[in-house]
Amino acid sequence: MSLFFEDFQVGAVGETGHYTVSKEEILDFARRFDPQPFHVDEEAARRSQFGGLIASGWHTMALCHKILVTEFLGPDSGSLGSPGVDEIRWLKPVRPGDTLSVRTEVLAVVPAKSKPGGLVKFRYLVHNQNGETVMTVVGSGFFQPRDGEAADA
Amino acid sequence: MSLFFEDFQVGAVGETGHYTVSKEEILDFARRFDPQPFHVDEEAARRSQFGGLIASGWHTMALCHKILVTEFLGPDSGSLGSPGVDEIRWLKPVRPGDTLSVRTEVLAVVPAKSKPGGLVKFRYLVHNQNGETVMTVVGSGFFQPRDGEAADA
Repeated sequence: MSLFFEDFQVGAVGETGHYTVSKEEILDFARRFDPQPFHVDEEAARRSQFGGLIASGWHTMALCHKILVTEFLGPDSGSLGSPGVDEIRWLKPVRPGDTLSVRTEVLAVVPAKSKPGGLVKFRYLVHNQNGETVMTVVGSGFFQPRDGEAADA
Repeated sequence: MSLFFEDFQVGAVGETGHYTVSKEEILDFARRFDPQPFHVDEEAARRSQFGGLIASGWHTMALCHKILVTEFLGPDSGSLGSPGVDEIRWLKPVRPGDTLSVRTEVLAVVPAKSKPGGLVKFRYLVHNQNGETVMTVVGSGFFQPRDGEAADA
């Protein structure tokens, strides 16, 4: 089931997705978007304060979003895009072979003034296979209702 | 020249990078990380409120970061990673063929207590070829000095 504006209730929480990230994916993303030594060079990463290759924080963010779009919201959701993000914190490195899941929490639901639907604000916690929180995000998105036309705030 | 902790002065501004994003790149990123109709399906995008294909906001963010790492900080900078981001705002869609550049501004420089180097806080404005601001970001990073060992806050 894909989610629409009326499906979000303040305080609702969920745990979704299991995605294992490979070394090749970490290197590929970093070469394209974040070619710093500790993301693209295994030997330099070993000598760094991280002690080995770690994923770009933007790769972790993109994988969190992938899990949210494909497994939390669903393929035909009422998502109409996002005005932005209020906070990202990278708490622990993501390393090759780590399996990520996302805890979602609805922080606020704000109906649009002039149209059906509105804005939903979320907190996301990304966990690894050891239950450690590797990243936290506070973000929001516009959603239309299941039977609806487009909404804006 | 690559940048190190001592190179950042509060209030310093710069404009850096010119990167033209193709339709193929927009589709490829969105298929991997943000498969919503207005990012992966040209016909659905045409019917959406965006009137055509637009880049995932996370793709725009990743391209901003690419420009910063490769053209602003430089290949051998003192960057030691980032604790997080305080704000992202997506103001206008990025479309196939758009050319992005990044305006950087140093908001704060906070020396670490126990080691050389420290935290630098930035504001980034991403502009398109028409001078429109498509995204704004407030973020920060740890940096070591040019002659230095690792720093943390």
